Amino acid sequence: MDSGFLLLEKRNQPLHVAYLNLYTPPVDAGPEFVKKLVERLRSYASPLPPFNQRLESRIGAGFWVEDPEFDIDQHVIHLALPRPGRIRELLAMVSRMHSSHLDRAYPLWRIYVIEGLEGGRIATYSKVHHAVADGVAGTRLMLKSMSINPGDIVPPVWALPPRGRREPAGLLTAPINSAAKLATRFRGAFGSLPGIGRELRQSLREYRGKHPDFVSGLSAPPSILNQHISASRRYAAQSYALSRVREAARALNYTTNDIVLGMCSYALRKYLLELNALPEKPLIALVPMSTRRDRTDSGNQIAFFLANLGTHLADPTERLQSIKSSVDHSKRRFAHMRPSEMLGYGLALMGPGLLNMIASPKPNWVAFNLIISNVPGPKTQLYWQGCKLDGMYPVSAIADGMALNITLTSRHDSLDFGLIACRRTLPHVQKLLDYLEEALVEIEGLMPVARVEDELAVARSAART
Amino acid sequence: MDSGFLLLEKRNQPLHVAYLNLYTPPVDAGPEFVKKLVERLRSYASPLPPFNQRLESRIGAGFWVEDPEFDIDQHVIHLALPRPGRIRELLAMVSRMHSSHLDRAYPLWRIYVIEGLEGGRIATYSKVHHAVADGVAGTRLMLKSMSINPGDIVPPVWALPPRGRREPAGLLTAPINSAAKLATRFRGAFGSLPGIGRELRQSLREYRGKHPDFVSGLSAPPSILNQHISASRRYAAQSYALSRVREAARALNYTTNDIVLGMCSYALRKYLLELNALPEKPLIALVPMSTRRDRTDSGNQIAFFLANLGTHLADPTERLQSIKSSVDHSKRRFAHMRPSEMLGYGLALMGPGLLNMIASPKPNWVAFNLIISNVPGPKTQLYWQGCKLDGMYPVSAIADGMALNITLTSRHDSLDFGLIACRRTLPHVQKLLDYLEEALVEIEGLMPVARVEDELAVARSAART
Repeated sequence: MDSGFLLLEKRNQPLHVAYLNLYTPPVDAGPEFVKKLVERLRSYASPLPPFNQRLESRIGAGFWVEDPEFDIDQHVIHLALPRPGRIRELLAMVSRMHSSHLDRAYPLWRIYVIEGLEGGRIATYSKVHHAVADGVAGTRLMLKSMSINPGDIVPPVWALPPRGRREPAGLLTAPINSAAKLATRFRGAFGSLPGIGRELRQSLREYRGKHPDFVSGLSAPPSILNQHISASRRYAAQSYALSRVREAARALNYTTNDIVLGMCSYALRKYLLELNALPEKPLIALVPMSTRRDRTDSGNQIAFFLANLGTHLADPTERLQSIKSSVDHSKRRFAHMRPSEMLGYGLALMGPGLLNMIASPKPNWVAFNLIISNVPGPKTQLYWQGCKLDGMYPVSAIADGMALNITLTSRHDSLDFGLIACRRTLPHVQKLLDYLEEALVEIEGLMPVARVEDELAVARSAART
Repeated sequence: MDSGFLLLEKRNQPLHVAYLNLYTPPVDAGPEFVKKLVERLRSYASPLPPFNQRLESRIGAGFWVEDPEFDIDQHVIHLALPRPGRIRELLAMVSRMHSSHLDRAYPLWRIYVIEGLEGGRIATYSKVHHAVADGVAGTRLMLKSMSINPGDIVPPVWALPPRGRREPAGLLTAPINSAAKLATRFRGAFGSLPGIGRELRQSLREYRGKHPDFVSGLSAPPSILNQHISASRRYAAQSYALSRVREAARALNYTTNDIVLGMCSYALRKYLLELNALPEKPLIALVPMSTRRDRTDSGNQIAFFLANLGTHLADPTERLQSIKSSVDHSKRRFAHMRPSEMLGYGLALMGPGLLNMIASPKPNWVAFNLIISNVPGPKTQLYWQGCKLDGMYPVSAIADGMALNITLTSRHDSLDFGLIACRRTLPHVQKLLDYLEEALVEIEGLMPVARVEDELAVARSAART
């Protein structure tokens, strides 16, 4: 699995994932607070696996070996934003940082602690190679280094012991959010071939019978999202009140995730319309989902489905309905599959388009148009090194043929969206942030009037706090 | 030539060159000075060739084409140093910036304007791909954007018209400072084959006769400087008073360049001794030199010689003498060669070691141990955008098998040394800065006593101003 990511990495396609976190320092923090924080972090200079491991090539294969000359200064970096220190400057900085590769001669992670934000806030940008940890594993590791108590100073993530010998921290245990990973997992699904075959035959029947809710791996239209990418990134991030999304879902009888997909659909439709590049057929999103049916915490219990985003529909209700129908259809199909069958089935369904994307992406033949991934985050207010966590924005990876990725973290009171795109291929992706807000307002407009007003009052007051 | 650089570039071997410049802003500069400076620079949003050209691959070859979507924000970056904003933090930042590649989807240059230095100074780090401009061409371009008058605001370098149609700005016209470039120039020397053959026969006689001052392309000993490199860099920079070096040269009957090589020799000897890694045979430096004998400004009128650094000798006089003998011998040999013969002769002499370095570097067989390059800088005090130029430190490129490069700019009153090294391969190269100063003190100690005192008083007072 690790080797897959390392092989697929290219000059224009670094395969690391990151988080941009925002924090409010403690009230008694002085001007030297960040400097001292960086010194404290650097004092943890003997990390535990996998944070002390670097890649070594032997006879053509890569191995993880302990780095005998571990150098904390290479991993903990102190930065400052230039004036005026707005979020805009921060996002420009993250865009640049996310464009550069981690050096394979060192353990593949780095944290930047950033001062100089307006209002005295601080930020961290923590980057790890996809071969070391994926988005969900990375999220779990990060949450382990936080506390619900502002007074607790937990050691940084690289100094925390892994959970157990059988589940070394940093090994991939959770959702797929890149095309690359799908391919490398393909082989593991062999044992489920009979079940997968049965499902594929069913899909073929649905495909031939033109079942309205079936999304095949050949449904995605060509779009400007599916081009060769440059090595430069544009990052955009914003929080939306989770309570608003939940209320809309409840009032309109959708799931929270339906509403999230509906917001993305509106935003993508408007963005592409403005560029005169909206495909006539609806965009197809790959949505990772957990297939865990017990309380265990290991193994590849993941799958994904293809969602019809209904971007060709102008009417918001029709668009939401189209999303819900395709999602529900996938869920019904998945309901009688074993987890390994779900994964194998999904991969087989997308096979042809997927192989095209990995081997030599042609814009007119893709298995899906983009990945939209909703990563579960903390359910309560957390603190890190005494600082209040105000935002936890994922910064995912993109690839040739897949120039945009939308990943969000559901925190206790908000949805922290992180949009990463090829800077050259997709102009002004930051506009999508405004369109996501417009989308939510449009969806709220569909709620029964009396209810809307009540709910909105509650939701907005929650969002303000 | 351009293609050569682009092909030789690797993940661990970016081939850009840069300058770290230090400036004192005008006395009336307010806290918004740098922000406004960046805005002014960005207002020059339609650059002239080569700064508006990006690389395009067609049928396997690279071409420079005008970028129709030139985006100034990708090229002019505003940064701030974290507290306390010492030179130490600045060098750490430059080390990181120099480690990341320029994106080939855009014109291959970028300037970072950096605020937050102690004492209110500002810095720029300007980076250009070696395929666009080499060190000397880059220096000339940079000087064109400066003025001897603090009140003159000259447009930035990308907005200045190239000198003439026959000499497009950015094409390589001057000294060699990377092994790669040597190879690509090899072919141009065919016309001088008879002369080169004559010289090589002479060299063979000297080699067989063990001429004490002849340095062959097989003389360089294996050393820790000649290893595979990582993708991470360590940059160290410092100024030394040019007047001190000149006085020592005059008093001891050496050239300024002999003294510079002597300083490097002492510093390398001490550094390698401390690491218990000093080769028994002397280190060999490749020293680029200009072979221009007229006032023209075009063509490849360059050559280089191999200097025996005498690092095996403990005695400072013997060491300087050994350097001088090998340099003088090369100069005598070159004196009766035409410029193209010099280049061809030098390349042929180093051929076997050079090809080994380019194709598959083996640490025990190199044509030379490092490049030491002295680039002519401005002869008077200059100003850029109203700011006084306080330092102009080259940041050169290193390569597999060549983990350290020492390049310096001779300014009117100082020698601005820039040392770039592989961070992983060579520990603590910043120590070399102190050893260069120690070396100069040691060399000054060789000057006749009465003279030393007079000269030192003059030199030190010059250095203070």
